Amino acid sequence: MSGIPVFSFVAYSGTGKTTLLEKLVPELRRRGLRVAIVKHDAHEFDIDKPGKDSWRFTRAGADLVAIASSTHAAVMHNRPIQFDELLSGISDVDIILTEGYKAGSYPKIALRRAASGHDFALPPTDCVAVMTDTPADAAGVPAFGLDDIEALADFLCERVAVN
Amino acid sequence: MSGIPVFSFVAYSGTGKTTLLEKLVPELRRRGLRVAIVKHDAHEFDIDKPGKDSWRFTRAGADLVAIASSTHAAVMHNRPIQFDELLSGISDVDIILTEGYKAGSYPKIALRRAASGHDFALPPTDCVAVMTDTPADAAGVPAFGLDDIEALADFLCERVAVN
Repeated sequence: MSGIPVFSFVAYSGTGKTTLLEKLVPELRRRGLRVAIVKHDAHEFDIDKPGKDSWRFTRAGADLVAIASSTHAAVMHNRPIQFDELLSGISDVDIILTEGYKAGSYPKIALRRAASGHDFALPPTDCVAVMTDTPADAAGVPAFGLDDIEALADFLCERVAVN
Repeated sequence: MSGIPVFSFVAYSGTGKTTLLEKLVPELRRRGLRVAIVKHDAHEFDIDKPGKDSWRFTRAGADLVAIASSTHAAVMHNRPIQFDELLSGISDVDIILTEGYKAGSYPKIALRRAASGHDFALPPTDCVAVMTDTPADAAGVPAFGLDDIEALADFLCERVAVN
């Protein structure tokens, strides 16, 4: 493992994990952290565009296709990659936020939106904070409002600093 | 470095490197090799699709975005990655073919198509084989016809086996 702190965001689909992460990234960057996001997609996502060279190489049967320019790079693994293998390949960031990985023993941030109607047992194992519109859910771990991204960013920064 | 054999395909743009690689991949797989392709894109490629979660995370400022399903994974580095760093992150393949990296001391396969009209000095440094429609260009290294993908695949397999 790379030793970079990992936090898993857990919630039922539709609770707003992606939107929360989208807002959290600039708050963390504003605090000087370089951020990686690792998302597990239960569906068969298709990142590539038909006709592009990378797509042609994948279709031809390449096990891995990487494409790089002077500013950025993308690596497509055309095989299953274990979560820990994916994490171990990450460097040059200060924090890794994951979405969609409920298993694993990484510290978890749980989201709960009462209106979503799901019966979410909180806090889950390894839960270090809860984002909720029903603070009573928190059961002993720090609770933040669902929109209180700044408080969550401060909390995470503190955890990264002592890591 | 990972120790995986690397071969760089060099030619002027428009000579047909991408099409050649596209045909070479299944030939190598048929010979039992797992293949990675690393392409340097001089243009600012955009692999992601507007509106997708990965695109949203990148736009939000994430330094790295990874997305994984049970069958495949993609990692987007939103920063410049050096060629050697990119290569060192590759595992679980038997051969790495690169396109667009003329620098570097990896063994090179040079392509020359007389009709392209470019004045390509052959063989370049570190050249181990030439694909050409003008065999006299080869100047002492093995020469294959531009369409002789099978001979090239055999040649590469042999090189990988003794590596």
